Amino acid sequence: MEDAFGQMLLDGADTEIIERDDGFIDTAKFFYFAPVTRWPAVERRALRWVRGRVLDAGLGAGRVALELQRRGRSVVGIDNSPGAVEVARERGVRDVRLLAFEEVDDSLGRFDTIVMLGNGFGLFGSPSKARRLLRRLRPLADRIVAASIGPQAYATDNPAHLAYQERNRKRGRMPGQLRLRVRYRDLSGPWFDYLFVSPDEMASILEGTQWRITRLLQSGSPYYVAILE
Amino acid sequence: MEDAFGQMLLDGADTEIIERDDGFIDTAKFFYFAPVTRWPAVERRALRWVRGRVLDAGLGAGRVALELQRRGRSVVGIDNSPGAVEVARERGVRDVRLLAFEEVDDSLGRFDTIVMLGNGFGLFGSPSKARRLLRRLRPLADRIVAASIGPQAYATDNPAHLAYQERNRKRGRMPGQLRLRVRYRDLSGPWFDYLFVSPDEMASILEGTQWRITRLLQSGSPYYVAILE
Repeated sequence: MEDAFGQMLLDGADTEIIERDDGFIDTAKFFYFAPVTRWPAVERRALRWVRGRVLDAGLGAGRVALELQRRGRSVVGIDNSPGAVEVARERGVRDVRLLAFEEVDDSLGRFDTIVMLGNGFGLFGSPSKARRLLRRLRPLADRIVAASIGPQAYATDNPAHLAYQERNRKRGRMPGQLRLRVRYRDLSGPWFDYLFVSPDEMASILEGTQWRITRLLQSGSPYYVAILE
Repeated sequence: MEDAFGQMLLDGADTEIIERDDGFIDTAKFFYFAPVTRWPAVERRALRWVRGRVLDAGLGAGRVALELQRRGRSVVGIDNSPGAVEVARERGVRDVRLLAFEEVDDSLGRFDTIVMLGNGFGLFGSPSKARRLLRRLRPLADRIVAASIGPQAYATDNPAHLAYQERNRKRGRMPGQLRLRVRYRDLSGPWFDYLFVSPDEMASILEGTQWRITRLLQSGSPYYVAILE
């Protein structure tokens, strides 16, 4: 398994190449090293809901963990990319573990807040996996602060996107359930499911999990942060 | 055959995704719409050697043809991408033809100068194809102004590049002979050979073609322009 994402962070490259399983490919400008002043407004606002002992799930280069440490929080950061873990550690995140989100259990201790910014709700992968993980996280944390992006961001008139959503529906997948991989130079990362949901879709996933959305931070764009308790 | 390159130009996208046939993938910042003030210095200097009736081979979005028109030259522009041809025409290039470089013949008339900036020597594809085309172009033009980039740009210690060059040598290809395609969203362009040569390699390709390098424009970087007569 090639750590394309981690190598990209290690090199400090400034463009991410993301490939979808239908061959659609696109680039995104790098956000992983952005200081808090350059974050989306809803993410800056979301920091107010982060209290106590924190798990940063999907650490990346550590931008969120570093900002929380600066604000005096005790942070455990996890990522399943060895390169990301190395970069975050070098940049000063104090407690970093090489661990996939789905492997989180009580061996990490209890948390006041689990932080999943940077579109982090996507790590839940699929509705069924999301429900399973949310139930498991229930006794481990009081609050989840998770960012996602509503389907208005992908429900465009672009025929390639419409065809992909139709294919998803035929397969019983959610329209915003994307199978992606990162490519970087000669490396191809593992394929993974990444879940984009509207606030309504998120609420319906939460049913029966003992989690609910207690606050929604929005800013006119499809990108939003939900506070789950 | 999908016109990934042309669609990218039509959309005015600002990052090009280029894939090599060993799976190596990279992005390049867009240069196709750059005004002359933002061109590499050697390309600006090269304009002094462009005289008379001009063929711009590999028109792209027309940046070179537009600048030459502005300077009073009569320019015929060719590209094998329908999207590129459309963009160049819309941007004001007056005589644009949808034509592959290897299809150039005397039906276009005689030219004083053939211009191949933007790494245009790459269009020659391979040494054997280059020799064949150069011989055919001999009665059609007095001068070729062609940009290339020497192997110092790719002869790095990057293992993926070294392995590719080794593979090329084993197959009897030049080290800088790259098999590439452009990818753009849901489109994959056709695979094509693109030839990067040092000035010495270019000189050896020219042997026996009745063309020779009469001037070399260099600037300390591996990118250079050769004047062939």
